[in-house]
Amino acid sequence: MVDTIGYAAKHSFSRLKPLRFQREEPKGNELELEVLFCGVCHSDIHQVKNEWSNTVYPCVPGHEVVGRVTKAASGGKHKVGDIVGVGCMIDSCQSCEPCREGDENYCEGPNSWLATYNGPMIPAKKASTGENQYGRDNTFGGYSSTLVVRDDFAIAIPDRLTPEQAAPILCAGVTTFSPMRHWGVKAGDKVGVVGLGGLGHMAVKLAKALGAEVTVFTTSADKKADAEALGATHVTIEKEVTKKAEELSATPGTFDFILSTVPEKHDINAFVALLKRDKSLVIVGALEPMAPVNNQAVAFHRRSVSGSLIGSIKETQEVIDFCAEHGIAPEIEVIPIQQINQAMKKVEKGDVRFRYVIDMASLKGETDGEDE
Amino acid sequence: MVDTIGYAAKHSFSRLKPLRFQREEPKGNELELEVLFCGVCHSDIHQVKNEWSNTVYPCVPGHEVVGRVTKAASGGKHKVGDIVGVGCMIDSCQSCEPCREGDENYCEGPNSWLATYNGPMIPAKKASTGENQYGRDNTFGGYSSTLVVRDDFAIAIPDRLTPEQAAPILCAGVTTFSPMRHWGVKAGDKVGVVGLGGLGHMAVKLAKALGAEVTVFTTSADKKADAEALGATHVTIEKEVTKKAEELSATPGTFDFILSTVPEKHDINAFVALLKRDKSLVIVGALEPMAPVNNQAVAFHRRSVSGSLIGSIKETQEVIDFCAEHGIAPEIEVIPIQQINQAMKKVEKGDVRFRYVIDMASLKGETDGEDE
Repeated sequence: MVDTIGYAAKHSFSRLKPLRFQREEPKGNELELEVLFCGVCHSDIHQVKNEWSNTVYPCVPGHEVVGRVTKAASGGKHKVGDIVGVGCMIDSCQSCEPCREGDENYCEGPNSWLATYNGPMIPAKKASTGENQYGRDNTFGGYSSTLVVRDDFAIAIPDRLTPEQAAPILCAGVTTFSPMRHWGVKAGDKVGVVGLGGLGHMAVKLAKALGAEVTVFTTSADKKADAEALGATHVTIEKEVTKKAEELSATPGTFDFILSTVPEKHDINAFVALLKRDKSLVIVGALEPMAPVNNQAVAFHRRSVSGSLIGSIKETQEVIDFCAEHGIAPEIEVIPIQQINQAMKKVEKGDVRFRYVIDMASLKGETDGEDE
Repeated sequence: MVDTIGYAAKHSFSRLKPLRFQREEPKGNELELEVLFCGVCHSDIHQVKNEWSNTVYPCVPGHEVVGRVTKAASGGKHKVGDIVGVGCMIDSCQSCEPCREGDENYCEGPNSWLATYNGPMIPAKKASTGENQYGRDNTFGGYSSTLVVRDDFAIAIPDRLTPEQAAPILCAGVTTFSPMRHWGVKAGDKVGVVGLGGLGHMAVKLAKALGAEVTVFTTSADKKADAEALGATHVTIEKEVTKKAEELSATPGTFDFILSTVPEKHDINAFVALLKRDKSLVIVGALEPMAPVNNQAVAFHRRSVSGSLIGSIKETQEVIDFCAEHGIAPEIEVIPIQQINQAMKKVEKGDVRFRYVIDMASLKGETDGEDE
């Protein structure tokens, strides 16, 4: 067993506190890592607070993990001492059509993919077989001192990225990069990014590096300068777009692609109206029922409203390499784990520029927290 | 001027009554037709009742028109005596990108395309230029004795289709055929059709002729036998799907394409959950805000919810020829125009198998109706 210390929520209204637990030893196809850094994703907060009604407690969040390999089988993809990244997945069924085609993030196995924390995406009680092929009901994420991951689900981190910079690329980066690749964003395209948080700020940097002209739509007037500094050519305050929605709906749109990164229910009608014929708005931030979409604006220019979920292992390696090559890195603020509860409150308020990354060295000396 | 008698609504709560009016003489690139038959589309009812808040009165509906050419310029596509069809469009700007690419139904001219009735899709007061490039604020449709149409917007009707059979193909046919072509429905695909009315029943016939395995989703248990007779392999009562939505959302879908033909706001979440990864549900029936869509089901399999509006002139000719070639025709009930008000009430109740077609010979002898 791998003795581990992490930070966990014990129920939906508790703060995160230290928790000592054991991980199973890595199997032949798995690595053991010493976690160095872990990004703080808005999903961590949704999960801790059970906002998707599927949280298994205790919940140790964290799926933007960079660590050093401490145990590896010989002949694998990674070796002891390598710096590797782990995103949202630590395994998948490996046999369904999406897995065979390299789309593990759309795994159709009975339990879908194995999330880095909170266990398989489809728990046993919801699986068609009623079983758990991974043998684990709950997994513990990267807010901890160690991690065990399937060897080929670990991402090589190039020297040109520091471990703390690489961390947020593993979720925020690939979640925005994957749909841009899938929907074919290319040089000269006009791309809109709705929301300028952890995902949104990576979307701006990546779209710009792909050669697109980027417009940011934000509710926060005070993010205008930030958006421009990140590479946006235009910044529009959302309520101005919404106000013009009626007028816009009569005008053909000019956008080739719009990515909505807002992490909660929101109204996309004004943005749909900005799309060119045959183009798509893709929602990556919100995993819940959206505000009603007027099909008139969708149908009149044969537009689409789509969704996309993180990205594949191949795409995760691609976006890491793309960032290293183009000198792109997320804007981060490194914190000790003792500040996590305060940091989560700030993320909820949108008061972060743009991603907190936890330095796991701060875990040293922690012991179990007391019950509240 | 072309002396014409038609049936018109004078305001949103009036029944349709005879109206005598004058059409402008056809220009050099236009045809004059004697209308023989006209289908009754659910849109006609929406428009008569001003349910889209854009009706210009008096309103003479009808955009599933088959007639005989009575006047034509020499050297045009059609000549005097030809039997031709007219769908939802009688002209378009001819200069925007969609028009140049043969997608007139997505015309981006200042007034968009010129609808067969109720004038240009974008009226002058909503157009960016504030002008009306067609010189007409209101157009009168096919519930009338004559029609004037741009020569190349008229569709050749092959001998193998009777004029009354051809009529509903010009809207119900192309509206369902166009998205099936655009989204690449092919032999062996599993296709779902939601709603079994005028559009839905054509969708079933066309999808089957394309080689797909068709499932019909209907709220009416009494349409099961009809659906099977039309070619559906499976018929599912909608509430059974909706009941299972939670369960379905955990299971990968099996459908390659789903077309929703329901002509009003409805909930598509249960159907989205049936789609395979990367596949689309396309809404053609409802032009209004839909019930909220849960982005979790959309994102988890990178699905899309799209809209599609009628079809291009090229696609309209294609679907007419496809029907002639495959021996497909809509199921129709021919009525005299004097029964139109009663027929519309039945359409609203879904009590028609499956399309009323008005025989315009019944107009002979009509004079103007009296005010209510």
